[in-house]
Amino acid sequence: MSKRGFAPLVKCLPLPLDKGKGIKGIGLVNNLNSFHLVQTCPDSKARAGELITPHGLVPTPVFLPVGSQGAVKTLTPEEVKDIGMAMVLANTYHLYLRPGIGVIERMGGLHRFMGWDRAILTDSGGYQIFSLASLRRVSDEGVIFRSHIDGSQHHLTPELIIQFQETLGADIIMALDECPAYDASFEQVQTAVDRTHRWAERCQKSQKRDDQALYAIVQGGVFPQLRHQSAEYLTLLGFSGYAIGGLSIGEPREQTLAMIEETVALLPENKPRYLMGVGSPEGIVDGIARGIDMFDSALPTRVARNGAFFTWQGRHNIRNSVYSQMEQPIVAGCDCYTCRTFSAAYLHHLFSCDELLAYRLATIHNLNFISELMRKVRSAILGGTFNSFKDNFLAGYRPTDEQIRLSQKRKWLKSHSPSGITNSD
Amino acid sequence: MSKRGFAPLVKCLPLPLDKGKGIKGIGLVNNLNSFHLVQTCPDSKARAGELITPHGLVPTPVFLPVGSQGAVKTLTPEEVKDIGMAMVLANTYHLYLRPGIGVIERMGGLHRFMGWDRAILTDSGGYQIFSLASLRRVSDEGVIFRSHIDGSQHHLTPELIIQFQETLGADIIMALDECPAYDASFEQVQTAVDRTHRWAERCQKSQKRDDQALYAIVQGGVFPQLRHQSAEYLTLLGFSGYAIGGLSIGEPREQTLAMIEETVALLPENKPRYLMGVGSPEGIVDGIARGIDMFDSALPTRVARNGAFFTWQGRHNIRNSVYSQMEQPIVAGCDCYTCRTFSAAYLHHLFSCDELLAYRLATIHNLNFISELMRKVRSAILGGTFNSFKDNFLAGYRPTDEQIRLSQKRKWLKSHSPSGITNSD
Repeated sequence: MSKRGFAPLVKCLPLPLDKGKGIKGIGLVNNLNSFHLVQTCPDSKARAGELITPHGLVPTPVFLPVGSQGAVKTLTPEEVKDIGMAMVLANTYHLYLRPGIGVIERMGGLHRFMGWDRAILTDSGGYQIFSLASLRRVSDEGVIFRSHIDGSQHHLTPELIIQFQETLGADIIMALDECPAYDASFEQVQTAVDRTHRWAERCQKSQKRDDQALYAIVQGGVFPQLRHQSAEYLTLLGFSGYAIGGLSIGEPREQTLAMIEETVALLPENKPRYLMGVGSPEGIVDGIARGIDMFDSALPTRVARNGAFFTWQGRHNIRNSVYSQMEQPIVAGCDCYTCRTFSAAYLHHLFSCDELLAYRLATIHNLNFISELMRKVRSAILGGTFNSFKDNFLAGYRPTDEQIRLSQKRKWLKSHSPSGITNSD
Repeated sequence: MSKRGFAPLVKCLPLPLDKGKGIKGIGLVNNLNSFHLVQTCPDSKARAGELITPHGLVPTPVFLPVGSQGAVKTLTPEEVKDIGMAMVLANTYHLYLRPGIGVIERMGGLHRFMGWDRAILTDSGGYQIFSLASLRRVSDEGVIFRSHIDGSQHHLTPELIIQFQETLGADIIMALDECPAYDASFEQVQTAVDRTHRWAERCQKSQKRDDQALYAIVQGGVFPQLRHQSAEYLTLLGFSGYAIGGLSIGEPREQTLAMIEETVALLPENKPRYLMGVGSPEGIVDGIARGIDMFDSALPTRVARNGAFFTWQGRHNIRNSVYSQMEQPIVAGCDCYTCRTFSAAYLHHLFSCDELLAYRLATIHNLNFISELMRKVRSAILGGTFNSFKDNFLAGYRPTDEQIRLSQKRKWLKSHSPSGITNSD
């Protein structure tokens, strides 16, 4: 396959800087990875920037669609590109278990394996080990667990996780972290934070490749004091970027937002900030207003497969009989392939019949919606109108009811806990 | 949606006739539908022709991918086009039950509903009523049955089936037939043949639209005498085309081929002959050699979703561990999207993980394979080399073992019998 179809990798793209705006801050990582702030919002903490990666420039704020197992569910790489996505997320835990890191190495690395020539971020798998695997035994050395697929036993360490991610060859790689449940006690979270710090340091020390940006993950649950500790400690170590982990895992939204604020306040201005696991339209806008540059979540693609689609007024479900005879597309004026091509009635029909095409068409719509949202947000930040954009958006967008959302989330987390289910996202 | 994305329908395409070859026979149906023989093979009954339809020219021999419920499973209309398909099949029985004929009428007809601007053939649903529905009561008047989806009771007549197909608006429509099981007795098949004839006549009489070609369906099971009766009777009535039904439903291959020969011998030369339900590469080549112009079958798409893919040496399964580390595409030199883009190892991985993308990629490959097979066959007929092409192909292609094939087919038919299952193809 090596001679077929792949354009040579773009080693370093010229920087299309916004003229006259200057560069607010540069977080130079290495020759191939850097982050530039282009504009900050005068009325909020929102910021527009650019991530330079070995696989192209990524405008921020950015949303990463999730392709845990090396594929954004239902879509080809071309479709993900056409939607405008500049970076996707894959998961070291999933790829380690299937097909195995060695297989991907022999296939020429993750980009070539999945046919994606733009940027990739690999998550370390910390969250998955703590949410999917069973019979975990955590020690400072690392973690022993059983695969959620076949029950086989594995022993992973921070050093191994870095080695795996260097072999996979993503543009951005993540330190191994310990992610406690949302209802863990202060003491439990403190223990996890301390271990996450020691592991981050070992990840940093074991890094050999100089063309990948390594991000640390701030933990601390819903305890401001621990979030402060974690952000300060990891900042002192000096990483290419900082993720906020352990949020959006079942805690109320108010706490999520408060923890983002507590953490961002202590993170360096000139490094990218990545809020893990948040992908609802309102969650993204709220995060951006609080200084977040990067998001990932399986939510837009997962709810799509259940028939839920985003509109500027909120999330609706195509299975509702109101759509059974609607000649209009699901979102009037939407420029995605689904809305340009099919009536809501057709999509309703496909879902009624469980036609596999249904899941694709809804996925395309939801990812396109998020992509358009990101473009609108960035343009508002660059134009100095982010705050009014945000107010308008949030006034018009009816978020999923908080109680329903939390109960769904907890139910989903439970169904994905060690007792069961193999579905990755 | 009426103003979005649809090119105006091609009312009648200019005929790209093969220069110097002349037209062997013209079966003019009406202004918008006709069939032209372009070339016949001197050494076999194979023939190349052209179907003119209101939605474009269809070179024959042609294979119709199955989209029973208004979608070729997993694919968009654009993908089906890119593969080179000129006509698809949809099913009146399925569309009548879901979403209902009236819904599709209000959405502007079947072409617009499913976003497909090339030719469509709708099957009458006879076969489905006799294989999927439960509690059938057949009389000369029509058939009363219960839906395989919700058990609701329905009464259909030949006149209603034509009315439905006129409302759906396909280019080619089919008469209602009665299809007995492959192990039915001579007397049972005789009764079904007689009823099929009376129904065909009523279908013909009730046809109102003059822009759709109506095909009759020859029945007769595995009894040469009944096949003769049926072919002669329906030919006397005079239809735009003749389908051969009631084959490839569990009988041995030798009988299938013998029945095709018995039937084709009595069908008019200048009308298209359509072998229903045959879609294996070897079955298609065998049928073409015996004078068949059209084929449809869910087999290429159905087996794809089980991981089976066509090669010029036979059918293989990507789940086999031999593919787990294969860097080459599944078929070296294949020009389909799947083979141009991904290694066999990646496809193996996607199937191992039950990633939905897997089903798409395998479907694209199998339909592309059939499409390429049809192009090669047609080119061989036009070039006067069909017989050697056929011999070479059949010598290299190892068909699925007859015993395994029959047991799989019967198992599948059983799982789709009135006792169960809603999957349409």
